[in-house]
Amino acid sequence: MKKIVARHGQNPLLSPKDLKPSRPGMVIECLLNPGAFKYKGKTGIVLRVAERTQQKEGMVSVPIYDEKGELKILDFSLGDPKLDNSDARVISYDGKQYLTTISHLRILFSADGFTFEESEEFPPIFGQGAYETYGIEDCRVSQIKDTYYLTYTMVSSNGVGVGLKTTTDWKTFKSHGMVFSPHNKDCAIFEETVNGRFYAFHRPSSPELGGNYMWIAESMDGIHWGNHKCIARTRPDRFDSARLGAGAAPIKTERGWLAIYHGADYGHRYCLGALLLDLDDPSKVVSRSEFPIMEPEEPYEKVGFFGEVIFTNGHVVNGDDIYMYYGASDEHVALATLSISEILKTLD
Amino acid sequence: MKKIVARHGQNPLLSPKDLKPSRPGMVIECLLNPGAFKYKGKTGIVLRVAERTQQKEGMVSVPIYDEKGELKILDFSLGDPKLDNSDARVISYDGKQYLTTISHLRILFSADGFTFEESEEFPPIFGQGAYETYGIEDCRVSQIKDTYYLTYTMVSSNGVGVGLKTTTDWKTFKSHGMVFSPHNKDCAIFEETVNGRFYAFHRPSSPELGGNYMWIAESMDGIHWGNHKCIARTRPDRFDSARLGAGAAPIKTERGWLAIYHGADYGHRYCLGALLLDLDDPSKVVSRSEFPIMEPEEPYEKVGFFGEVIFTNGHVVNGDDIYMYYGASDEHVALATLSISEILKTLD
Repeated sequence: MKKIVARHGQNPLLSPKDLKPSRPGMVIECLLNPGAFKYKGKTGIVLRVAERTQQKEGMVSVPIYDEKGELKILDFSLGDPKLDNSDARVISYDGKQYLTTISHLRILFSADGFTFEESEEFPPIFGQGAYETYGIEDCRVSQIKDTYYLTYTMVSSNGVGVGLKTTTDWKTFKSHGMVFSPHNKDCAIFEETVNGRFYAFHRPSSPELGGNYMWIAESMDGIHWGNHKCIARTRPDRFDSARLGAGAAPIKTERGWLAIYHGADYGHRYCLGALLLDLDDPSKVVSRSEFPIMEPEEPYEKVGFFGEVIFTNGHVVNGDDIYMYYGASDEHVALATLSISEILKTLD
Repeated sequence: MKKIVARHGQNPLLSPKDLKPSRPGMVIECLLNPGAFKYKGKTGIVLRVAERTQQKEGMVSVPIYDEKGELKILDFSLGDPKLDNSDARVISYDGKQYLTTISHLRILFSADGFTFEESEEFPPIFGQGAYETYGIEDCRVSQIKDTYYLTYTMVSSNGVGVGLKTTTDWKTFKSHGMVFSPHNKDCAIFEETVNGRFYAFHRPSSPELGGNYMWIAESMDGIHWGNHKCIARTRPDRFDSARLGAGAAPIKTERGWLAIYHGADYGHRYCLGALLLDLDDPSKVVSRSEFPIMEPEEPYEKVGFFGEVIFTNGHVVNGDDIYMYYGASDEHVALATLSISEILKTLD
């Protein structure tokens, strides 16, 4: 009998030691959250590489890009009363917040789907300009005809928003700026239009009222978005009680658009669930997972930079099989094969 | 010598007692924040009317619309430990938040610009559907050719976003859904396109990183928006240190787009400032007020439902004069005449 989820035997596929830092003085802290796509018969992934600076005695150092794209290191003395470094991910100095790591994206290819290689032919993508001074993260890739749409998280002191780039050759990219304004992330564009309209999932967050819910938006051109609707809210006492957001683009099935999403509880444990959306109007939810379809079980999913985390934003589909790439413990990249028909059985 | 600001001698023009509640059992708490426009030679305003329910002994009652648009009253016992009613504007029950008042919009007209009348010909606009169950607020009106674009705040447990309606006759309205997803408000659409593109100010807020900053977005059709850019951030120790947001649509001058905005400090004191934006690329800021161009001075601005507040989202322009309608103390509607040339002198 087919299982819903089968993890790959060589997991984790990629770990921080497997790649070189972007420059001297930087250390790769996490490899995570790959977008995935097919290109010229190969499987490609767009990997998030989170780096920190080598730390100096008695100091906390954080990396940021200036608006020209140059990396700067800011050093703060550990004894400084204006410094709050109690969170491993964010430090605060004199009321301003900085990330302890800065992320960029790398493009890797594989012939077999699990052995990935980097080449100079496809250089990394770094943050650029005023909206990416704290880096870029968690890229989804959607292919519409010959064009790949890359939606990713832009991070800066202006806030956290969704950036869009398009490419046809993975070497030259056209930037379309910020397509969803702060606070927003987890954006995945559908891989075909529905009744002439583009659709995208996104995940706004609110400082008051509302929450960390999954939304859908419409577009006439894939670049300008409107008609925002909330399609899935957090549910008390379940795996998705604190936050949820889209994985990769949904998969078209006979029963509807199948979307895999991540849901987290207040213990920051990240599992995966599924949504089934109306084929003709994807803002209508037909069904939603009562229980996770996948949860942290393996050691590399339970222990790492941030343990008890499974987070996916990339897959490629072959027949009934979803080759799903995912970030494990915010530190490694792993692969699991999911069965579309078995997931659909849980959504009756 | 001309002054920057001249308040109208009959201020406040409108107060809660001047209008009738929308239905029995409701009490008008505040009249505030009017959008303004010209229609058939008259001045129109779209007023926010905030109502509360008549309170019962030992209870707190809050009004909400259900998804069919029916008004429901929720009653909470004052002794209930799940109730937190320490804030006059928001109560919390069992982790869920509700507003103590619910707002709708009313359309009033004036022949002289300061005596406004309601008529049955132009009925009020109430919240409708899942995104307006807590009401609708603070409507800006922009006229582009013969069409009026109404951008207003939609409030519900899904979050706070920007809704868009269009009309040509102020009787029938076309709804375009939520055009800026949560958390967003203070949206004003430019009254003409620039190089073929629509522009709009908006004000996203973030639960982490970023702040309550003023942004601009582009659109090809006035309905779907993208290319979001931050044009003005809060400034420490100034009148706009905590939050800022657009007033009405900007005014085209020879020196650039002149935008009046509200800025608040951490004492919740709301003043007005001005921005001058590049005529050809309104995302470029040419100049910004060092000091407020108007601040709460009169008794009706200093004392009321929420004192020390001047908030504008509506004006009509005649030559050098801006007839600016504004909410005073979150309770009254007032009028001041501002001089474009005098404001521009402060922006050298």
